[in-house]
Amino acid sequence: MNCQQSLFIWGVAGLFTVSAGAQSDKPLTIKSQGSFFVGGETRTTNPPNQPPQDVTVNQMYVQYQEPMNGARHVPVVMVHGCCLSSKTWETTPDGRMGWNEYFLRKDRPVYMADQVSRARSGFDATIINEVKAGTAKPSQLPNVLMASHQTAWAVFRFGPEFGKAFDDEQFPVKAADELYKQMIPDFNSVLPMPNPTWKDMAALAVQLHGAILMGHSESGFFPEEAAMIDPSGVKGIISIEMGCTTNLKPDQISKLSKIPVLVMFGDHLDGVKGRFGSVWPENLKTCATFVKQVKDAGGNAELMELPKLGIHGNSHMLMQDKNNLQLADLILNWIDQNVEGKKVSARR
Amino acid sequence: MNCQQSLFIWGVAGLFTVSAGAQSDKPLTIKSQGSFFVGGETRTTNPPNQPPQDVTVNQMYVQYQEPMNGARHVPVVMVHGCCLSSKTWETTPDGRMGWNEYFLRKDRPVYMADQVSRARSGFDATIINEVKAGTAKPSQLPNVLMASHQTAWAVFRFGPEFGKAFDDEQFPVKAADELYKQMIPDFNSVLPMPNPTWKDMAALAVQLHGAILMGHSESGFFPEEAAMIDPSGVKGIISIEMGCTTNLKPDQISKLSKIPVLVMFGDHLDGVKGRFGSVWPENLKTCATFVKQVKDAGGNAELMELPKLGIHGNSHMLMQDKNNLQLADLILNWIDQNVEGKKVSARR
Repeated sequence: MNCQQSLFIWGVAGLFTVSAGAQSDKPLTIKSQGSFFVGGETRTTNPPNQPPQDVTVNQMYVQYQEPMNGARHVPVVMVHGCCLSSKTWETTPDGRMGWNEYFLRKDRPVYMADQVSRARSGFDATIINEVKAGTAKPSQLPNVLMASHQTAWAVFRFGPEFGKAFDDEQFPVKAADELYKQMIPDFNSVLPMPNPTWKDMAALAVQLHGAILMGHSESGFFPEEAAMIDPSGVKGIISIEMGCTTNLKPDQISKLSKIPVLVMFGDHLDGVKGRFGSVWPENLKTCATFVKQVKDAGGNAELMELPKLGIHGNSHMLMQDKNNLQLADLILNWIDQNVEGKKVSARR
Repeated sequence: MNCQQSLFIWGVAGLFTVSAGAQSDKPLTIKSQGSFFVGGETRTTNPPNQPPQDVTVNQMYVQYQEPMNGARHVPVVMVHGCCLSSKTWETTPDGRMGWNEYFLRKDRPVYMADQVSRARSGFDATIINEVKAGTAKPSQLPNVLMASHQTAWAVFRFGPEFGKAFDDEQFPVKAADELYKQMIPDFNSVLPMPNPTWKDMAALAVQLHGAILMGHSESGFFPEEAAMIDPSGVKGIISIEMGCTTNLKPDQISKLSKIPVLVMFGDHLDGVKGRFGSVWPENLKTCATFVKQVKDAGGNAELMELPKLGIHGNSHMLMQDKNNLQLADLILNWIDQNVEGKKVSARR
């Protein structure tokens, strides 16, 4: 896309319908904003011909905005998926308002985290330099995930085959090139287990005196993982479009059964041809099992399948689809009813 | 942007004292915010056992906020240095307001760009997977720069030797661990030349109908490089703490002599012991030569050495030092006088 095309997209952005009170062309007054890190540890390396050097790894970068009336609501922590960054939640590929700003305009404190090993959180690149220097083997290099256009089209369910969209496709496929720019190398394979992002999400929830954790795709089950490490700050779990773990232990299910859980899926789960065709039917199945397990343990878990609500054509990128604010309203309503239902006073 | 509205707001804005609005505990009203990409191109790769795959590389991620009275001022584009991201300009390591918010509260539209190949801009990781797969040699791996705590302490001039601060050090060294979390792998060595960030910065300035480009350290001379590629959108250049190129051709100097240039340096340039001891005296020297060349060609270039203004103890990280807002005021005053001196009407 060239500059003129980009400007065109910015120019038309104001034409999209946005629900009342949240128009992107209305001024936005915020109480505070900023960024900080959660977690991180020191690793000592021994580069050739130098004294030992310390580097910091496994830190998680968090960028936040607090709205004026934010104290009325539980903060929402948004964590992106594979091969993406927090850009996921911002301005959509076709220039509309993202969920980060929409939630903010709906008085929710919003905290966006770049996963540990991605984007502004950085990652531990030591092994790359060691292989180059000959002190480690090429086989020790991480598997770096780079999502191609072709993979994104299939896995993100823009259409049955590359370049062809579903008739009712909600993803703005004409701006797919702008989505492809969001896709960056995924170094999660260099991370220790358990993934430090899980621990950091749990710690962030505690630091915020309670938070709703939202994950998507690769990070879709991260809120559950965080809550199983430390549920004390996790007031709600929103898991969007992912596979679920179905062999949790009773004490793990028990922890999760004390937290409201929403699992969301879009449309055309069985509509993709080729090697990714079974991904989404299988993911839905695992999540149906997981949701049942939590409910059977007395928990409040909901499997929200958008087509069953009469909402059709949604891709994997719910937060960027043309009806993204309608879907945001579904989530906000779920939060109001399930997380904040009995909570009307200040959270702090 | 709604020009009528902007002009109206411009008229009212004069009633308020700007400095009062710059306190971090006061609400902040913004006209718009969001993010987008500049540049980017498609690269086709041939992974084993798969059809050819297209990935997007060399795109530059930009995050922006437009203040209510922004139309009065030329936007400022901030680009971070080596092994860092746009976090550079945000909340300081000890939790104070960063330049991004301060400039915004001073009515400047602020655009923060993650350099191409860093953070949310991503990078081309193809070679890593090729070396792992055995289709490329380890020697083809990039030199990945990872700044260690020891290197940062010396190069960022926190003190004469690791762990010891200068008596009048302005960097908040007690929060150095928080700075170390900002340091992430630098893959600039995988980039083609000329560096796509230069072209993208120039293109962004055009897209904004004029912008001031600000670079720091590794990117300190990027504004000049951008302007030499396309000066048409570059209304001012702010180069902070870097080495300057001294062998530019007359036509390049001529281009730069038509744009106001500010070059800033902090304190203790000759105070660091060890292998980095000569870095800053040498950098100052090259920039003194460069500034003289621009001035000799009739340009408006200023070499601002803070100690000569009676401001002492500043590190390499001027935007994070304890007196960072005092230094921001110096820059804002320079912009007012040198870039916007004859400009009183709306910019769009």
